[in-house]
Amino acid sequence: MKDISGGVCAPRGFKAGGIWCGIKASSKKRDLGLIYSEKPCVAAAMFTMNRVKAASVLVSRDHLADGKCQAVIANSGNANACTGEAGLAAARRMAALAADEFALKADNVAVASTGVIGVPFPITAVESSIGALASSIRGDEAGHEAALEAIMTTDTRKKAASVELEIGGKTVRIGGMTKGSGMIHPNMATMLCFVTTDAAINRELLDRALRAAVKHSFNRVTVDGDTSTNDTILVMANGEAGNALINIEGTDYQLFAEALEDVCIKLARAMARDGEGATRLVTISVKGAKDEDTAETLAKSIASSSLVKAACFGADANWGRVLCAMGYSGADFDPDKTDVFFASAKGSILVYKQGAPVQFSEEEAKKILLEEEIEINVKLSGGIGSAAVWGCDLTYDYVKINGDYRS
Amino acid sequence: MKDISGGVCAPRGFKAGGIWCGIKASSKKRDLGLIYSEKPCVAAAMFTMNRVKAASVLVSRDHLADGKCQAVIANSGNANACTGEAGLAAARRMAALAADEFALKADNVAVASTGVIGVPFPITAVESSIGALASSIRGDEAGHEAALEAIMTTDTRKKAASVELEIGGKTVRIGGMTKGSGMIHPNMATMLCFVTTDAAINRELLDRALRAAVKHSFNRVTVDGDTSTNDTILVMANGEAGNALINIEGTDYQLFAEALEDVCIKLARAMARDGEGATRLVTISVKGAKDEDTAETLAKSIASSSLVKAACFGADANWGRVLCAMGYSGADFDPDKTDVFFASAKGSILVYKQGAPVQFSEEEAKKILLEEEIEINVKLSGGIGSAAVWGCDLTYDYVKINGDYRS
Repeated sequence: MKDISGGVCAPRGFKAGGIWCGIKASSKKRDLGLIYSEKPCVAAAMFTMNRVKAASVLVSRDHLADGKCQAVIANSGNANACTGEAGLAAARRMAALAADEFALKADNVAVASTGVIGVPFPITAVESSIGALASSIRGDEAGHEAALEAIMTTDTRKKAASVELEIGGKTVRIGGMTKGSGMIHPNMATMLCFVTTDAAINRELLDRALRAAVKHSFNRVTVDGDTSTNDTILVMANGEAGNALINIEGTDYQLFAEALEDVCIKLARAMARDGEGATRLVTISVKGAKDEDTAETLAKSIASSSLVKAACFGADANWGRVLCAMGYSGADFDPDKTDVFFASAKGSILVYKQGAPVQFSEEEAKKILLEEEIEINVKLSGGIGSAAVWGCDLTYDYVKINGDYRS
Repeated sequence: MKDISGGVCAPRGFKAGGIWCGIKASSKKRDLGLIYSEKPCVAAAMFTMNRVKAASVLVSRDHLADGKCQAVIANSGNANACTGEAGLAAARRMAALAADEFALKADNVAVASTGVIGVPFPITAVESSIGALASSIRGDEAGHEAALEAIMTTDTRKKAASVELEIGGKTVRIGGMTKGSGMIHPNMATMLCFVTTDAAINRELLDRALRAAVKHSFNRVTVDGDTSTNDTILVMANGEAGNALINIEGTDYQLFAEALEDVCIKLARAMARDGEGATRLVTISVKGAKDEDTAETLAKSIASSSLVKAACFGADANWGRVLCAMGYSGADFDPDKTDVFFASAKGSILVYKQGAPVQFSEEEAKKILLEEEIEINVKLSGGIGSAAVWGCDLTYDYVKINGDYRS
């Protein structure tokens, strides 16, 4: 498996584009995007666990029930959530407009929205621009970039990944893009994520691979503990790679699933790194727990703690808050058989060993924690369960972004 | 029932004091306090649910197992948590030192600590100052104030309450003090709270009244979602009021329990108001839920949302985030049968009604939300369950306090 360029347009037979249609009225940044496959795709998707679901989520869930999809139309600047019946009608209309452009059935088009909640959706802006959007799509990296820009809100970085691998002698590609910066918390992270692949794989196994990948990637990211109304991850597979259809859980499936997980982890890490106001990507790793779930619960509790996050911002080796967050997680562990390390490219430092503080150089700890990517590593002695979770620091800018901006 | 002055010294037979003994090495603010009853007390206590428990918590739990207590010694500046065997020995020694001064058995003395986690406890500072502490106690408000100052960390306000009521023809008093500002989250809020009363009540009913009061007060406060290692609430009753011993759940018990809850709610609200960096006290009220637990879960989810809290800081009527936080709470409710109001002394404004946004004046909403005490009121149509929860806004200063200060 190797990294390649191209994002969602890296796999054969996919085109993408994005334009400004007027939903982001003041900024005039791209706000409407489309990803299209020339051939029909099998599709799998996961949606927000929030009881309050955006209209786009309800419509996409409905359209994807048959596991088929050939295009996704997405907008930023308006979440189309808490918008009542009018919002639902707008989401259906959005799918129908895209379908008409490509002579598809409306239920083969997925819809996604992100932005401010509770503002009536300006469907006329989509109606008047759908032709321009359809004309804008292209099968290269520029198409991918335009679509990606169209789904960004407070994101400061473009988050994309694409890989290439060989399955049964054929070259298979997987490409993905994601947006997500605030309201980021399992399950799932607040985000839109679209993944394309030219692999030939049946619907059941595509769905299984997606669920496994999300468990180890997007469901292990937290920025602020808020789970949005609009979270959507969609993967579309059009079979253009020409590999033998993956329809059993054999080697081909394993290769595909690993590659899909790799793409999802890259996107998830990028999302944590781009958390609203974040200055550091914080990877929390817990090893030696009695099982994987326990490790994950402990790691998520650390990653979610406002106090740990503020300490990371201050590059303060405040390991007491790490222990404290583990303690209230509800997970089973023995504080007296726990070691805690802070680490980064500048080194690793043991700060708490087997129930007691360790003397360490504050200067060295500061040097380690001032890096842009830092780690909090916890070693337990309760078993072989391990998990890594990605988060970010809590900064003045997080407060600024969310105190000032109605998103 | 009426409010009176005096704090923990308001009830008859209680004295308190506080000094600087050197634990807060640089600030030279009071860091060691004591509350003493001239007569033996029945006592009830509740402690942190955190699996990582401070040495003081372990020792106090042990000492209070028999429901008897005559004094509590407490310090700030060092949490004596994650300090291993040496920490436990120090906590036991602290109780023994206080006991010696008043010719008590060590297990009739409770211990409480708050401050930085994981720093060896400087027991010699307590040893050399215990005489001065014992001499400092007095039975008036100044004694109460000195003890209260000695348990404050990042608190910016003194949090105390005392009431007087008549039970069976006798005047009964209840007084309380609390510290708590960051690491505030149910269950329990991060805090030390000491309550005294001269009521005559048996241990079982004192314990029952305490648990009921905490459920409706401290367990409904959240500042930052972190539950500390040191949370302690202790109530001591010395019977000096001369009322007939409360030993059944009759009228006398009800009166006492209501008054105790009143004191606890006042202290809990004061704690939310003084949340680290907070500029506003936010009361979240949910009515019409199918039961009280559902109402409480919904209210806590709103109060805990970083996005809602940041919006409160910005005085932004961002009701979408309120719905969103309700949606991911896991509690059962119907978004289409929900109304949301923002309110304060400046008025009340309906922003979301029965599943759809309501047109409202942003100017009026801003005026309401710029107050120091604001409310988010949610009305459901699922039953008669209701709950109020207290929180605060998320501000630059929260980040500053916790990014800079190892607490």
